[in-house]
Amino acid sequence: MSALIERFLAGDRRALARLLSHVENRTELGRRAVREAFARTGRAHVVGVTGPPGAGKSTLTNALIRELRSRGRTVGVLAIDPSSAVTGGATLGDRIRMMENHTDAGVYIRSMATRGQMGGLSLAATGAIHLLDAFGFDIVLVETVGVGQDEVDVADTADTTLLIQVPGLGDSIQTIKAGIMEIADILVVNKADRPDARQLVRDLRNMLLLGEPLPGGWDIPIVETIATEGSGIARLVDKLDEHRAWLAAGGRRRARIERRLVREVALLARERFDQWVAARLGSEQFAAAREALVNRQADPGTVASQLVGGVLDAVDPAESRR
Amino acid sequence: MSALIERFLAGDRRALARLLSHVENRTELGRRAVREAFARTGRAHVVGVTGPPGAGKSTLTNALIRELRSRGRTVGVLAIDPSSAVTGGATLGDRIRMMENHTDAGVYIRSMATRGQMGGLSLAATGAIHLLDAFGFDIVLVETVGVGQDEVDVADTADTTLLIQVPGLGDSIQTIKAGIMEIADILVVNKADRPDARQLVRDLRNMLLLGEPLPGGWDIPIVETIATEGSGIARLVDKLDEHRAWLAAGGRRRARIERRLVREVALLARERFDQWVAARLGSEQFAAAREALVNRQADPGTVASQLVGGVLDAVDPAESRR
Repeated sequence: MSALIERFLAGDRRALARLLSHVENRTELGRRAVREAFARTGRAHVVGVTGPPGAGKSTLTNALIRELRSRGRTVGVLAIDPSSAVTGGATLGDRIRMMENHTDAGVYIRSMATRGQMGGLSLAATGAIHLLDAFGFDIVLVETVGVGQDEVDVADTADTTLLIQVPGLGDSIQTIKAGIMEIADILVVNKADRPDARQLVRDLRNMLLLGEPLPGGWDIPIVETIATEGSGIARLVDKLDEHRAWLAAGGRRRARIERRLVREVALLARERFDQWVAARLGSEQFAAAREALVNRQADPGTVASQLVGGVLDAVDPAESRR
Repeated sequence: MSALIERFLAGDRRALARLLSHVENRTELGRRAVREAFARTGRAHVVGVTGPPGAGKSTLTNALIRELRSRGRTVGVLAIDPSSAVTGGATLGDRIRMMENHTDAGVYIRSMATRGQMGGLSLAATGAIHLLDAFGFDIVLVETVGVGQDEVDVADTADTTLLIQVPGLGDSIQTIKAGIMEIADILVVNKADRPDARQLVRDLRNMLLLGEPLPGGWDIPIVETIATEGSGIARLVDKLDEHRAWLAAGGRRRARIERRLVREVALLARERFDQWVAARLGSEQFAAAREALVNRQADPGTVASQLVGGVLDAVDPAESRR
């Protein structure tokens, strides 16, 4: 085993930091670290924190950290910034600087801005969550902006997902929220002292009443907070605990975890396949196929079949022909 | 060949509509239609129209259609709505109803709201563009909301990408725009009669001056429009034509097309691989592995290797071991 992984397993925070970079960059050492750490995972409560830009996610995350610490829990935070996938992450800068003022050894904060390989963000986030979990944090907060499919996937890796709303955002953002709504376990109305907060709470309550009740009887609560003042945060942590207890009952958490792990296997298999394909597409032998594609003498579907058909068919012709 | 594909190749619009549904739903018939149509593609000018919610994309698209028709060009439109991937597409409803009032045979409008399989949206959009191109439309407009990675990928399938901005959107949206900026060939400032439009044009001009000049000397133009009045649209179409002429010179379009087609091959190969993996993950033989995963006796990386390693290694052990 590598020395870095040994130091990580011994509780060295700098080793954790370096391995998180390896996981983010999808290196072989990063993958190995996750494999070695995996047996120690499954203990942390993984909590997704999502919502539109401007909802106050970072302030709420900080308030949650304080409340959780006051209850003696250790907290790992993974802040994911999709907008930085192209620009390189400037938006997170201020917030991270603020959060890094925590000198508390019971808190670890990490931002992640993986470049936009499809599935890459999910795998990097999943791996990072495993490492934080194995490192021993009681709670792992995963903060994402609620916009794209990638973020929905990341939220799907949480045990409990908080969806933050604020009064006064425009209609277009409401539209996006409608989609994200389906992944929420707890709704948070932040900036609850704003004049139109009551109306937002009413609207959300009506939306919940219109939806299907969940099997197993978890009623999605609406928690009003003013994160800047810490108001409502204790109740929010109580609700997190209630949701975790609800998940633990009747094997619900186990079912969620199984689904997540199987999805992770599929993404890891695909990552390996993508490398395999990329090597072939860049090879000398493929040059003629490129030429045929551009000249419209061969179509992408047929070229793709030639590329992988033989491999997949060789193992099980019946299934790969579908 | 299927009767539906024959009717499509003969110019039947209803066959086009039905095959577009097959492409969207990723059926075998849809894939076959794209294969059969491919030899006829490459003629249309594919134009991406993207920008944040509220920028007036649909109004601008309609204004573009009118201007292009007045110049005798036929237009196919593919409107992609990512927010509907979860909700089912309500947001597009109004716009599509409006656009379907076109009874002109030189215009065809189609919306698409593929559910969020990673890469699925790209493949559905690419296939639909091929069909519209092969059907004979001079211009194919691909309208997307500029937010997530999926939309960046879709924009990447265009010859020319218009990025629409409007004055008065908040900072958080500006942040998102900064990322999308890198894919723009032409910037459009819509609602140019608003008081703060001058400032936005100045800001964008400064942003362009700060950026690297493109090799080959395409200066990204900023076109001011008032789409509701048709103002600025003639100049915008002139710029589209200029960009197409620029692309045609020196093999630039050929290079873009080659990159797009190779990417499409990779996505099609991956789609097939995903089906292959899904069949295995759901099988009886995999039940023991699921159990081992949940009990932390086997980690996802090792299970993924067992699943695909043998297949990929069998072909070329050197490359798949990376």
